[in-house]
Amino acid sequence: MNLEDYVVEKTKKAKEISGEFSLISDSCRKDILNKIASELRNNSNYILLENQKDVSSAKEKGISKALLDRLKLNEERVFSISKSVEKVANLSSTLGNIVKMWKRPNGLMIGKMVVPLGVIAIIYEARPNVTVDAAALCIKSGNTIVLRGGSEAINSNKALVNVIHSAIEKAGFSKEIVQFFDVTDRKVVDELIKLYQYVDVLIPRGGPSLINYIIENSRIPVIQTGAGNCHIYVDKYADINKALKIVENAKVSRPSVCNAVETILVHNSVAEEFLEKLYEILKNEVELRGCEKTLEILPQIKPASNDDWTTEYLDYILAIKIVKDIENAIQHINTYGSKHSDAIITEDYPTIIKFLNEIDSAAVYVNASTRFTDGEEFGFGAEIGISTQKLHVRGPVGVEDLTTYKYIILGNGQVR
Amino acid sequence: MNLEDYVVEKTKKAKEISGEFSLISDSCRKDILNKIASELRNNSNYILLENQKDVSSAKEKGISKALLDRLKLNEERVFSISKSVEKVANLSSTLGNIVKMWKRPNGLMIGKMVVPLGVIAIIYEARPNVTVDAAALCIKSGNTIVLRGGSEAINSNKALVNVIHSAIEKAGFSKEIVQFFDVTDRKVVDELIKLYQYVDVLIPRGGPSLINYIIENSRIPVIQTGAGNCHIYVDKYADINKALKIVENAKVSRPSVCNAVETILVHNSVAEEFLEKLYEILKNEVELRGCEKTLEILPQIKPASNDDWTTEYLDYILAIKIVKDIENAIQHINTYGSKHSDAIITEDYPTIIKFLNEIDSAAVYVNASTRFTDGEEFGFGAEIGISTQKLHVRGPVGVEDLTTYKYIILGNGQVR
Repeated sequence: MNLEDYVVEKTKKAKEISGEFSLISDSCRKDILNKIASELRNNSNYILLENQKDVSSAKEKGISKALLDRLKLNEERVFSISKSVEKVANLSSTLGNIVKMWKRPNGLMIGKMVVPLGVIAIIYEARPNVTVDAAALCIKSGNTIVLRGGSEAINSNKALVNVIHSAIEKAGFSKEIVQFFDVTDRKVVDELIKLYQYVDVLIPRGGPSLINYIIENSRIPVIQTGAGNCHIYVDKYADINKALKIVENAKVSRPSVCNAVETILVHNSVAEEFLEKLYEILKNEVELRGCEKTLEILPQIKPASNDDWTTEYLDYILAIKIVKDIENAIQHINTYGSKHSDAIITEDYPTIIKFLNEIDSAAVYVNASTRFTDGEEFGFGAEIGISTQKLHVRGPVGVEDLTTYKYIILGNGQVR
Repeated sequence: MNLEDYVVEKTKKAKEISGEFSLISDSCRKDILNKIASELRNNSNYILLENQKDVSSAKEKGISKALLDRLKLNEERVFSISKSVEKVANLSSTLGNIVKMWKRPNGLMIGKMVVPLGVIAIIYEARPNVTVDAAALCIKSGNTIVLRGGSEAINSNKALVNVIHSAIEKAGFSKEIVQFFDVTDRKVVDELIKLYQYVDVLIPRGGPSLINYIIENSRIPVIQTGAGNCHIYVDKYADINKALKIVENAKVSRPSVCNAVETILVHNSVAEEFLEKLYEILKNEVELRGCEKTLEILPQIKPASNDDWTTEYLDYILAIKIVKDIENAIQHINTYGSKHSDAIITEDYPTIIKFLNEIDSAAVYVNASTRFTDGEEFGFGAEIGISTQKLHVRGPVGVEDLTTYKYIILGNGQVR
């Protein structure tokens, strides 16, 4: 079979079975997920053996330590993946709910019913846990799924999909609800993103080049996730101790993730006190880069260039800019930010209201770390990424966001 | 200025002013819209004069009567456009509402706040009323707007935009919230659909070729509207009189719109009685095309080919297929339909539940005409189109659907 037919065939199967799958009860979906969770634990040896093949060839190719860490599984990680599947199984489901229903003057009753999106395709890179996490969220939300993972993790992914398939069959359903491409040719992606007749939504997960490529070329509607150039603004009326604790946490607790802070903006009138204290806290761990005014206070740090304002470091680097007022801070964030997560530290009520109203980001924080932008922390149980677009879903993409609705209209002979 | 700079400049202005505009109160938005409504009435002579230019050159070019009818304005039409603007002005607004707010175990309070999308671009064809309708809906929902109308209506559109601009200024706001391209070069579209950094959502309104072109090429998220290949299934347990009345209404009341019915499916056991009666009602107005079994009952009508099942006629044509059961009907609709509006006529409860659950369309009707899929009829007051995609909005796209949300998170020093 040629590549095009191969991609069409698998994707078409996901579509064909999606109607039937959308109708099964939540207890059946729960059962499938619990079976996947237990099969993952039962087959951890097999999974780790296959993962070892990927790790060995990755080492031979000399990939970075960070990427290797994302790729590598161990027993503990497999157990934790299995645990998250159980957690997703137990989330509440809104499928089939009529979120509102109203009566029109002509007697028609119109209701809005929550239904699955249909078929969700995920294109992702090296992390094999995405295979399981994405499948679990899509199954819970009644969608069928088309997975296309990176070549570095192909053996791990195949093993995980085998385990998932056997679990689905043990639960009495067709394994065709989870489609996986075992060919890693890049052309699979190019074929897949054309198939709007079979795929309802496409979610790319990975670096900016993957995501941009897909947005540029996809014929299928995309949920864009990823880039987090997050800010914390330390206001004139900030509680300096809260500010220090929050900035440290937002930068240092996990710099490689999208909700870590990248630039802080500091009000002129508290800059000296705050920055000197911050420097003492971060100096051994974080590279600081400051604007001209910052360098007057901290001459020992590097100067920041214009590029620093737009960069998502994902590293132990922090840019610092001194601003003259809240307007300045808001303008900087709305201009250079990625509309992901931005925080203000202040005790002043009018300033808080202004910041909440005027910052155009998915998550706008008052006196808390930006690190909380996360499905788990928001109380959604799990997420498939953080959306930075405005259509359909903004912020953490949870199970409820993988649904849509249809109108049901009950009449008794009405005509127009 | 070259064309690229021209498109960028106007679109960028819409973005720059969108933050400020998103913050004005609903009473200000109402005031702007009421001023637009009254200025339209006050300037109807000017608008009709400019429209006459378009109508004359359209006639010279020999465009179809139907298109000419869409292009032509008269005093009554201008008044009715003005009336719809007033109606939009008076719709209730959800902007700024916190639709829910919850407290996390760590004390963080997380709220979901309704906000405008930002900048909406509309690319449309000959109908000049779209200029006003689209602008009104976007203003009401706090968005700024970029309009690109068809060349056939360029003089009418310029006049309408002039009137809109002067009304906005009379209300004390900047006319820059409504951007309009007075150059009709097709390249404007090609430049516009690249500008994802300035435009949050793109809504094409027009024929399938325009919509497909934009979906294929846009870098900006699109709300897809349009194609309606709608069905009515007349079940074994149908009330035949209701069925006749509904099918007639859905076909004949306005065949040129997307919610008109194109194919009817008739249960075998009622086919003879129903089709003979239907033929008597429609024979002088509608061209009927039937499947083989239909031709056994109505040998005088044309045969339907496979193409008929996928065609949106938008005309006095109706395809007829006899099916052996509800499964058959559902499968036909989900296979050949455009997921717009589909109806069942039956008095049987289990059949109704099955149809409601299994039809994968934006609007699923029981015992009513598909013609009700419309913002006005649903009670939304107005709409910008009928979405046939599943992301963000399905069915009539009203004012509330032109919004998104952001999370506001109130903390008191929380770190992760």
